[in-house]
Amino acid sequence: MNVLFTISYKGTNYSGWQKQDNAVSIQEIIETAVFRALKQKVDLIASGRTDAGVHAIRQYANAKIDFPKIEKLPNAINPYLPDDIKIIEAKPVADDFNARFSAKRKTYLYKLNVSEFENPIYFDFQTTISQNLDLNKMQEAIKYIQGEHNFKSFCSSKTQTKDFVRTIFDIQIHKQNNNYEFYITGNGFLYNMVRIIVGVLIDVGTKKITPQDVKTILNNQDRKYAGKTMPAKGLYLYDVKYEDIE
Amino acid sequence: MNVLFTISYKGTNYSGWQKQDNAVSIQEIIETAVFRALKQKVDLIASGRTDAGVHAIRQYANAKIDFPKIEKLPNAINPYLPDDIKIIEAKPVADDFNARFSAKRKTYLYKLNVSEFENPIYFDFQTTISQNLDLNKMQEAIKYIQGEHNFKSFCSSKTQTKDFVRTIFDIQIHKQNNNYEFYITGNGFLYNMVRIIVGVLIDVGTKKITPQDVKTILNNQDRKYAGKTMPAKGLYLYDVKYEDIE
Repeated sequence: MNVLFTISYKGTNYSGWQKQDNAVSIQEIIETAVFRALKQKVDLIASGRTDAGVHAIRQYANAKIDFPKIEKLPNAINPYLPDDIKIIEAKPVADDFNARFSAKRKTYLYKLNVSEFENPIYFDFQTTISQNLDLNKMQEAIKYIQGEHNFKSFCSSKTQTKDFVRTIFDIQIHKQNNNYEFYITGNGFLYNMVRIIVGVLIDVGTKKITPQDVKTILNNQDRKYAGKTMPAKGLYLYDVKYEDIE
Repeated sequence: MNVLFTISYKGTNYSGWQKQDNAVSIQEIIETAVFRALKQKVDLIASGRTDAGVHAIRQYANAKIDFPKIEKLPNAINPYLPDDIKIIEAKPVADDFNARFSAKRKTYLYKLNVSEFENPIYFDFQTTISQNLDLNKMQEAIKYIQGEHNFKSFCSSKTQTKDFVRTIFDIQIHKQNNNYEFYITGNGFLYNMVRIIVGVLIDVGTKKITPQDVKTILNNQDRKYAGKTMPAKGLYLYDVKYEDIE
């Protein structure tokens, strides 16, 4: 049976989703837990990688698993998982369903706090900057980012990708007191793309650049024109939509 | 100069506020940081102890410190503090001000989540139960707890206190989706008192006991009649009010 897991994790203590030598990944932890619980070796296919320190409110991964009651898989596997990784749902999907290639849209969340000092309670869960932000200017900049563009300026130069065209469907900024939440939805994201978009929006909010400069940055198609990559700890994979199973 | 610090911390990695042998306390970490920053030995007097694993959104502590610009003390000391403990404010107070004895009212917050599985992202910050809660019944029980009472039933039997009379000014329960926040304000709290009150309110919410049973529990003045002590990780010292400095 092809099973789709919904997984939630705190990324702080891991090298990221993807299995790798000499580092503890979330994928490896879950595959090991499945083996310990079910004595089955599985290869999890996730909706996408998340980097070291990035959290997931809802990550998705599928694998072929034999189990009598699919929906009870979380109860079977979770006891073998650490406190900071849990499977929150399991459901059967079509044989050709692939959590990576079947994904239609993904939403990332970035949590930002404006304050003189980093909040010690939420240290692992948000990024803090000390400069005030102009929300209107950031909202104005969003319209240049939305839509289909070549996002090469918004992609780590370490990427191996050749196709830099992606579509950003929506960017929402929610502000509550000094806390900002950036919800960014697209059909796919390049390496570090969300963290660079948020960095550029912060440059607009602090008036280091103008909203119109964002258009120029996009057009230049070169990473060096966009600002810095924001830290992983404020980033969350928020949700992934799969049209055909809803 | 007598200085009052406002301090915030994540309690997860510490043995609690109070200095003790063979364990790392928050008090010791801050006193060491003050010494490293200012070369001054200080004895911090906190509004009260917090137990191992309990967080503080606003804890208060005073000490005699020589420093030219009191309000800049957080900038001087914070670089010597770990990420999970920070001084968020410093201000001069009268010589006879004592953060413990001058406290007029304290508010604790308890974060509770109703879910089949513990949320791996917020694992250190809330307690999870799987049973649904009847909010109306909990609200009804609150009226028996509010006011001045002998709270011996709501105090750990390990206490050395002889005076069990305290006044609870207010209990507020905020519910959002499956998350409950209990705000409990009183003139002072006995050992484990907040965690036992929340445990009893949960027993009411799950209909293990009736709201009226809470009155009986109080009257019995014996710890064995109240339910269990809830885990530390959902508990936050939320704020302390000092009338004379506001």
